[in-house]
Amino acid sequence: MARVTRQHLVRRLTGQGWSPRSDRLAVEEPLEIRIGGEPFAVTMRTPGEDIDLVNGYCFSEGIIGAAEEIRTARYCDGAGPDGLNTYNVIDVALAPGVGMPAPGLRRNVLTSSACGICGSVSIDQIMDRIVEPGAASNSAPICSDVALPAELILDAPRLLLEQQRTFAGTGGVHAAGLLGLDGRMLCVREDVGRHNAVDKVLGWALRERRLPLAEAMLVVSGRASYELTQKAALAGIPALVAVSAPSSLAVDLAQRAGLTLVGFVRGESMNVYTHPDRINLSSGEPRMIRTPDRDSAG
Amino acid sequence: MARVTRQHLVRRLTGQGWSPRSDRLAVEEPLEIRIGGEPFAVTMRTPGEDIDLVNGYCFSEGIIGAAEEIRTARYCDGAGPDGLNTYNVIDVALAPGVGMPAPGLRRNVLTSSACGICGSVSIDQIMDRIVEPGAASNSAPICSDVALPAELILDAPRLLLEQQRTFAGTGGVHAAGLLGLDGRMLCVREDVGRHNAVDKVLGWALRERRLPLAEAMLVVSGRASYELTQKAALAGIPALVAVSAPSSLAVDLAQRAGLTLVGFVRGESMNVYTHPDRINLSSGEPRMIRTPDRDSAG
Repeated sequence: MARVTRQHLVRRLTGQGWSPRSDRLAVEEPLEIRIGGEPFAVTMRTPGEDIDLVNGYCFSEGIIGAAEEIRTARYCDGAGPDGLNTYNVIDVALAPGVGMPAPGLRRNVLTSSACGICGSVSIDQIMDRIVEPGAASNSAPICSDVALPAELILDAPRLLLEQQRTFAGTGGVHAAGLLGLDGRMLCVREDVGRHNAVDKVLGWALRERRLPLAEAMLVVSGRASYELTQKAALAGIPALVAVSAPSSLAVDLAQRAGLTLVGFVRGESMNVYTHPDRINLSSGEPRMIRTPDRDSAG
Repeated sequence: MARVTRQHLVRRLTGQGWSPRSDRLAVEEPLEIRIGGEPFAVTMRTPGEDIDLVNGYCFSEGIIGAAEEIRTARYCDGAGPDGLNTYNVIDVALAPGVGMPAPGLRRNVLTSSACGICGSVSIDQIMDRIVEPGAASNSAPICSDVALPAELILDAPRLLLEQQRTFAGTGGVHAAGLLGLDGRMLCVREDVGRHNAVDKVLGWALRERRLPLAEAMLVVSGRASYELTQKAALAGIPALVAVSAPSSLAVDLAQRAGLTLVGFVRGESMNVYTHPDRINLSSGEPRMIRTPDRDSAG
C-alpha cells in the first residue's frame, strides 16, 4: 500500500550537459467509489488514506453529514491483469435510513450546484447546506468569533511544508492541513489532486468527530478555488488560508458563507479577501500603514 | 464578455502593518455544455475563448474528431436573476451522422477510461484513440521523428510567461501554449482550470485544422497529470513540456503513447521522463556530465 511515490530513471540536462538520474514521482491512480455496489465516481488520487478520502468525498457531496452514516467502506476484491488486488475500488455501504445519492449526481459538486437554466452557480443552494449550530438564521452561516492570530497565518505555509513528506521528494503534490489555533497541525494530507487532499483532511476530521471545525484553519498549498472554499464552508471552518491566489467565485462564496479567506501568504505579507475582522496582530490593534507616528519617525 | 479578471478590495498585511489595496482576481464561472439541448457537463472556467474550450472539450472526450463534426456551438438565451444573459451555457449541435455521447459519459475522461472491474486505468482504451496517420500498427502511436532543440525547451516557460496576460495581474491562472519548432507560440490560453487551458488550445488547433500537431510542443505552466498527457497524445503532439513535476500515470501514458515528456524545466535544467531521443542540443551530440575533457579542464 506504500505507493505514494515511485522511482523513475530520467535524463537530466543541466549547464554541464546530460546525466542519468533517478527521480521520485508522485503516484497517481484512479480510485473508484461505489455506493451500495453501484459505481458512483472515479477520482485520480495518490493512494493512501483512502478511507479518509471516501469519507470526505461523501461529506463534500452531501451524501453523508456524519461518520455514522457510513456503515462500512471497504476495498473491493477486484484484481488487475496480474491477479493482484489493485486497492483502487472502495465500496461504501450507507447506514440504514441514509438515502442513496440521486442518479446523475457525480463528482463534481459543481454539476449539482450550477443552475440548469442560466448556468450560474447557485450559491444559495450551497448556503442551505452550510449551517453552524446556533447561528442566527439571518447571519452568515459561519459566525464564529474566534480570533485568528495574524502571525500564525503568516507561519501556516511553513508549518504545512514541514509535514509535506511527499512534496519534499517529488515536488508534485498538493497539500492541505488543519491548523489549530494553538499552532499545532491537526492533520496534513497530500495528493496529486488538490480537492482530494482537502477531502482526505475533512474525512479525517469527520471520522474523529471534530466537525464543525470552529477552531481551526484550513491551509492549502496552492490556489483557492470555488470548490475548496465550498468544502471549507461545509465543514464550518472559519478560515481558509491559501499560499496562492483565490478565484472570483471563491471570494464570492467566502463572503456569503462568513469565511475568512486569506491568499498570497508569503513571508511577512498576506492578502485578506473576506471577513478580516477575525484576524488580530498580537501587538494589539491592527496597524495601518502610514500612521502619523510612523511618518514622523521616518 | 471581458470578465477574465475582476477588481476586489483586500486588506494587505506587510511588515509595515495593514493597508487597503485593490487586487485583481481571476474570474471563475461555470460553463454548462449542452449537446443537442441536453446537459452534458459543467466545467468551472475563466470566461473567454469558450468556443475553443467547447471544441477542445468535445475532442478530448472523444465526441468529435474534427471541427466539421460540430455544426454549431452557440450561447443559449438563459438569463440570470438580473435578466442578463450569463454567457455560461453553450449548446452544441453535432453534424448529421455524428453520434450523441453515450448516456452517463461526463467529464471527466477518467470515468470512462477506468476499468469498471479493477479500477485501474485502461491505458489500452486511450491508446485506441491515439492514432497518428502513417504510424506502423505495432509502434508507439506517436512516432514523429522531429528533432526538438533542447535550448527551445529550456526557453519554453519564458515564452509562455511572456504571453500570460491574466497571470501577470492575478497570479491565479494556469496557462497552456502550443510552441512551434521555430520558436513561435502558435496559441496561448489561460484558465483557472489547467485542463480548460489545454482544451482551449486544442480547440483552437482543431478549428484551425492543425491536428495532428506533429511539429509543436504543448507547454503547461504547472504539473503534468495523466489528464493533460492524454490530451496531448490525442492531439498527436510529440512533446509535453511542464514547468513542474509529472505524475506516475502521466509518465506511464507518455511512455506508451510515444510522447516526449519533460518536467521541471527551470533555467538551464530539465528532466526528460520519456522518449528523450527527439531532443537535441544544438552543439551536436548530447553531452554527458564528467566527460574526460571536462574533468581534465576543471
